[in-house]
Amino acid sequence: MDIGLLQELKSVVAPEQVSTSAQDLKFFASDQGPITAYCEPDVVVWAESVADVQAVVRLAAIHDIPIVARGAGTGVSGGAHATPGSLVLVLDRMNAILELNAQDEIARVEPGVINADLNDAAAVHGLMYAPDPASYKTSTIGGNIATNAGGLRCAKYGVTRDAVLALDVVLADGTLIHTGHRTFKGVAGYDLTALFVGSEGTLGIVVGATVRLKYLPVDIRTLAVFFPDVRSAAAGVLALGKARVQPCILEMIDGASLEELDSHHGTDLATRGNALLLAQFDGLAASQESDIAAAALSDLGGVVSREDPAEAERLVDLRRHNRGLDLDSDITVGEDVALPRSQLVHYVAALEDMALRHGVGVRIIAHAGDGNLHPTFWVPEAEPAKIAALNAALDESIEKALELGGTITGEHGIGQYKLRWLPLEQSEKVRHIQQNIKDLFDPQGILNPGKAIVMAL
Amino acid sequence: MDIGLLQELKSVVAPEQVSTSAQDLKFFASDQGPITAYCEPDVVVWAESVADVQAVVRLAAIHDIPIVARGAGTGVSGGAHATPGSLVLVLDRMNAILELNAQDEIARVEPGVINADLNDAAAVHGLMYAPDPASYKTSTIGGNIATNAGGLRCAKYGVTRDAVLALDVVLADGTLIHTGHRTFKGVAGYDLTALFVGSEGTLGIVVGATVRLKYLPVDIRTLAVFFPDVRSAAAGVLALGKARVQPCILEMIDGASLEELDSHHGTDLATRGNALLLAQFDGLAASQESDIAAAALSDLGGVVSREDPAEAERLVDLRRHNRGLDLDSDITVGEDVALPRSQLVHYVAALEDMALRHGVGVRIIAHAGDGNLHPTFWVPEAEPAKIAALNAALDESIEKALELGGTITGEHGIGQYKLRWLPLEQSEKVRHIQQNIKDLFDPQGILNPGKAIVMAL
Repeated sequence: MDIGLLQELKSVVAPEQVSTSAQDLKFFASDQGPITAYCEPDVVVWAESVADVQAVVRLAAIHDIPIVARGAGTGVSGGAHATPGSLVLVLDRMNAILELNAQDEIARVEPGVINADLNDAAAVHGLMYAPDPASYKTSTIGGNIATNAGGLRCAKYGVTRDAVLALDVVLADGTLIHTGHRTFKGVAGYDLTALFVGSEGTLGIVVGATVRLKYLPVDIRTLAVFFPDVRSAAAGVLALGKARVQPCILEMIDGASLEELDSHHGTDLATRGNALLLAQFDGLAASQESDIAAAALSDLGGVVSREDPAEAERLVDLRRHNRGLDLDSDITVGEDVALPRSQLVHYVAALEDMALRHGVGVRIIAHAGDGNLHPTFWVPEAEPAKIAALNAALDESIEKALELGGTITGEHGIGQYKLRWLPLEQSEKVRHIQQNIKDLFDPQGILNPGKAIVMAL
Repeated sequence: MDIGLLQELKSVVAPEQVSTSAQDLKFFASDQGPITAYCEPDVVVWAESVADVQAVVRLAAIHDIPIVARGAGTGVSGGAHATPGSLVLVLDRMNAILELNAQDEIARVEPGVINADLNDAAAVHGLMYAPDPASYKTSTIGGNIATNAGGLRCAKYGVTRDAVLALDVVLADGTLIHTGHRTFKGVAGYDLTALFVGSEGTLGIVVGATVRLKYLPVDIRTLAVFFPDVRSAAAGVLALGKARVQPCILEMIDGASLEELDSHHGTDLATRGNALLLAQFDGLAASQESDIAAAALSDLGGVVSREDPAEAERLVDLRRHNRGLDLDSDITVGEDVALPRSQLVHYVAALEDMALRHGVGVRIIAHAGDGNLHPTFWVPEAEPAKIAALNAALDESIEKALELGGTITGEHGIGQYKLRWLPLEQSEKVRHIQQNIKDLFDPQGILNPGKAIVMAL
């Protein structure tokens, strides 16, 4: 990159916060999403304060340099992939919990705070930060906000947007603004907080957040319910709804995924059934809810096993880490559609059918409680014909999800990888509005360009 | 109004959907908010379909006529007050529940559906629509969305924004767009749904909504806990938080409000204590939670009475109707601040002090569970000096709420009445962004101009 600009960067932050080393440029070229156009950034900058972010943004604005803000890089849609000529702004050093107020049940954090660290700090007060993406041990609150991350517990507790009360945001001109309120409720003016949540760093850079905490449950009960096939498991999801019990976690794992887990962890899950519903209940009624659920799922032919806390934790952890095993590559791509729950059974059947027809493999795991499926399609090798089949299956899976009233992304975000499907879900008029909002916040187009939204024609 | 335009209006909808009668112009001049500049509209139009709304908006755009969209007119911030030269567009005839899907736990409704009617329809399936503003028996879902209405149950279940999954919106040029998703989760593009919720008809006109339903609780337990003073009751709110129980309803009513209720309903609440905490717990753990709460509040000196369902319903109904008694006028103005819960005690003390100093009366009721207070200030007559004292007390109450980390409006919206306080809460930069968003959606400024946001200087 231009030497003069590099010097300027090193002068607005400290020299050791700036790197152009080959190793760093490679490391910060991508997040965990599929790579469609590999590209290394021109420079990597670690911000250590709000003032750092403001200074870097101002400099980038002057020199018209695209900024890719990034937390831990655990995103799976390529939202933090570097783009041509970009500056990757790493926020993981801004990792202070500025306040944890147990009476107000809120925390104020810097964007680089690790989700699990916030939970550890909250647990001391009998509180928790509910949104728990599978990456919660490594992902940052800032990254969770950028993608409006979901997770397992959002079946009961809601997604990131539901937990965020207020934001500090550095805009494209370097201005710092504050949105939202420290209170649980507040309706003054337009909801800019919700607009920034999930905007993937394209409207501003989140440098602080006030989040709402929830009560750490006093009791947790977990059921592992094995079914002969994934369609019966999907029917179990509706049966729980009909029984009017609210799991905090309701995961569905198909036979192929169970085998995958067994092969990595030495477990024998696949011998117990061809599909698993993992249902967790929490709170004072956990035991009652779990009994009701066990009865409803037994009636459907499920083999119910009540798991002790250690085994329950192990199973939930296995499920969380499943994504880690399933890192996307040329030949393995995970999806993230969400569906109305009544359509789960039909969609699972359709997925199995389309995998067969396209001659690709499919494994299905799902946050079934909110109809959010993560099917993974794969082919054995990167031959052009097989890649074409993989892509055809992916495209068909997206179209089918939309046909059944679903969305192309439940919790991972559009990033870079899912841009090609966004026009299938959103009308040209809606895309035009989104583009206008982008232009309003970032007239130069320097904030993570080419992500999250697709320009209307 | 111009005869030609009136003829045009009557041709794009049916003639009987248009009125310029003195009676109608008067009736639709205002909602239930304080009136600062009484103004009748030029014409009232009742829409009966999405096409009606589109046609009226297109015509208004051509003739540059401001449109005030309106549901039942139960808002209390003047968001539906008519403005000079305006057309009031009444949506209460669009009152069909288009779909109620118990498996998907959602409903699709037209904007004019009454909140209570949706709840009645959902109850048949063991479901409920959770947001329950005090006006729920008469207010419409469209109006609830326009103000992001709260209510009693949002202590546990969240506000309107949390219940809205998708919207159909007619934009300022008459285009119909669809935002959001039928699914519980979805992160495709910017969150336009949240942007429209609470925007008070200034960005578009909501003509349809997909909302999430919750499970109707199987058990409900209610405690009426009387305290010697409102400060002890406010301390009780924190005690419940510390006991980690989650009431679905937690209302605080001070002595003056109890007397007001008694005088209208022939009850004897004020003889039982000088402040009441009304705590309701629901779900399978209701009984346990209620026992824990009773113990915690007794320890604080509260006199706990466990109410049978009929008496509980009566008390909650009294609380809901309190607002009906307290209609704003020149001499009585209700507030709607929200505070971090730890500040409730301090704020209540400050309110009592400022009422004394300004020589005005104050009554306090609060959705205490989420720190949302509705103090009502009043003076005995409309003398200029007394009105000035009333306004001074109001201004001071707002400033104090902000000083304690609060917001000027928890659930009623800015409307027209609270515009004067918005710059105290939002920076010029934030107001500028809001104005730009307004200009983006409504470049002509025909959608409810002069409401919800304050232009930056």
